[in-house]
Amino acid sequence: MQILKAYSETLKTYFEQILVTKDPVTLYEPISYIMSLGAKRIRPLMLLHTHKIFGGDVKSVLPLAAAVEVFHNFTLMHDDIMDNASMRRGHATVHEKYDVNTAILSGDLMLIQSYGLISKCSDSPAYTDIMTTFNEMSVQLCEGQQLDVDFESRDNVEIDEYIQMITYKTSVLIAAAMKMAAQYAGASQEDQEHIYQFGKNIGIAFQMQDDILDSFGEKAAVGKRIGGDILEGKKTYLYIKALELSDDNQKTKLISLMNDPHIEDQRKIDDVLNIFKATHVRVYADQLKEAYRDLAFSHLAELKINESDRVELKEFGQYLLDRTV
Amino acid sequence: MQILKAYSETLKTYFEQILVTKDPVTLYEPISYIMSLGAKRIRPLMLLHTHKIFGGDVKSVLPLAAAVEVFHNFTLMHDDIMDNASMRRGHATVHEKYDVNTAILSGDLMLIQSYGLISKCSDSPAYTDIMTTFNEMSVQLCEGQQLDVDFESRDNVEIDEYIQMITYKTSVLIAAAMKMAAQYAGASQEDQEHIYQFGKNIGIAFQMQDDILDSFGEKAAVGKRIGGDILEGKKTYLYIKALELSDDNQKTKLISLMNDPHIEDQRKIDDVLNIFKATHVRVYADQLKEAYRDLAFSHLAELKINESDRVELKEFGQYLLDRTV
Repeated sequence: MQILKAYSETLKTYFEQILVTKDPVTLYEPISYIMSLGAKRIRPLMLLHTHKIFGGDVKSVLPLAAAVEVFHNFTLMHDDIMDNASMRRGHATVHEKYDVNTAILSGDLMLIQSYGLISKCSDSPAYTDIMTTFNEMSVQLCEGQQLDVDFESRDNVEIDEYIQMITYKTSVLIAAAMKMAAQYAGASQEDQEHIYQFGKNIGIAFQMQDDILDSFGEKAAVGKRIGGDILEGKKTYLYIKALELSDDNQKTKLISLMNDPHIEDQRKIDDVLNIFKATHVRVYADQLKEAYRDLAFSHLAELKINESDRVELKEFGQYLLDRTV
Repeated sequence: MQILKAYSETLKTYFEQILVTKDPVTLYEPISYIMSLGAKRIRPLMLLHTHKIFGGDVKSVLPLAAAVEVFHNFTLMHDDIMDNASMRRGHATVHEKYDVNTAILSGDLMLIQSYGLISKCSDSPAYTDIMTTFNEMSVQLCEGQQLDVDFESRDNVEIDEYIQMITYKTSVLIAAAMKMAAQYAGASQEDQEHIYQFGKNIGIAFQMQDDILDSFGEKAAVGKRIGGDILEGKKTYLYIKALELSDDNQKTKLISLMNDPHIEDQRKIDDVLNIFKATHVRVYADQLKEAYRDLAFSHLAELKINESDRVELKEFGQYLLDRTV
């Protein structure tokens, strides 16, 4: 994806400048570690690209791009503790490599660092607006993570609630990243809102694609396995929709499969996937994913930007959804 | 303490306004819980009082006062997980009452809320300076907590390192609170620095008093026991100085006492306290505490404020150090 590659060296150099391992090393080293785990850096790169689209100077907005990526990795560090995850991007998670206390405290510091990075843009007339965007997103991200946790012990999650959860947990961060870039570049209120809605709805479609691949992918993403969500008891769209479309027998079976800790992992995955297939949930999931993609593209159409930039953003959106891993 | 009482109702009402338990309740309720545990609220009350001393309007600075208290409680929520503490202010800690994941995520949200509260003062010309003060303090607090953790597994902690640790872990928060109030009120750079140094050095003396009371107090603070620091293997001034003043026999005994997990708790406390007494560390601790108090008062003397305000601040400093529990 060309627009993601354009600034990756600039961003890498900036990270090397700011992510210096200081004393106490026990606090700073885990931050360097998680930040080195070969992420695609989609959020900060899209922030830089959005800023350029709105006529801004990419270098000036590097602290915001870094803030978004450091914040993202803070959420991963803490979510991995909560999810008891041992692997992240093919490597040991921070609480596995170090310990839980380290992952808590280094994560806290990353959250603080992300605010510190935003404060580097205090000269901008949009500074307070940017801070508001970032703050609202941060609160929503915590709420989304909590909803995700709460849903694991509930059988009656509604599709609306699921969409709200993935909106908060996944998509507001990319949306906020793009909005912050637009705000810094002095874009109009309308453009700020349209770029936010583009990011938000593409993010929802992206997460739906993620959920679909988790059950129907050809190959699992690094450090994951096909059916991982099923084993974790995640109430994804696939599960909720399958429950809705099931007959009484399937419904009883699905609920008992998801709640029984004694069933062997692969059998659980296979049996749940069989119900997913029998109820054709993938068709519905693909439709809803495309509806969110189209909603994203409708906001893209409203932006007052160059046509070539619009085409590139559309390609970026499609790229996110065309992933097979 | 009169100056602490003056604004406590105003602050309480403000907290009731901002700390509403929203959905998801599982995320917000633990925040209301920890904030209700009968704290003295010394930091926000001193922030309000400092702001008044520098001629500001107390109501306008309530968000900053709340930010400091919410931040303080975030650190307690996460520190209690790391210290495996079951009690806080005579009640169950959040990870005990709910669970560790809840304490992590609700704590994260409190950190975010504290930044959100500071952002409410974005109209102030001092906004970016206040944010810088808060950010630097937050980073130092994480570093201080990490040093405290690191020291537990080290026998060779130096007194300078101990002072740096308690400065970061305890005293920069009250110092930053007072400086932020001065910044908001438009105080001079000199006064900002003197009030910061007053808060910092009183904070160091306060923590030394805390350590002294932990070993030599008549009665333990609520939810604590005399000798608690010894059981936790804390490298306080008392321990470091006792090690320095010990003969070879005492030194060997002290190190083995602190590192042996098999000694019965009360015996460990009694034996360590006997070495503390034999080496007269309390005399040295009191002297150093008083040196930091005097340093704090020397900065107080430099402030360009009313004499009556200066007297009140001095009384406040002495009040913190005269605690017997």
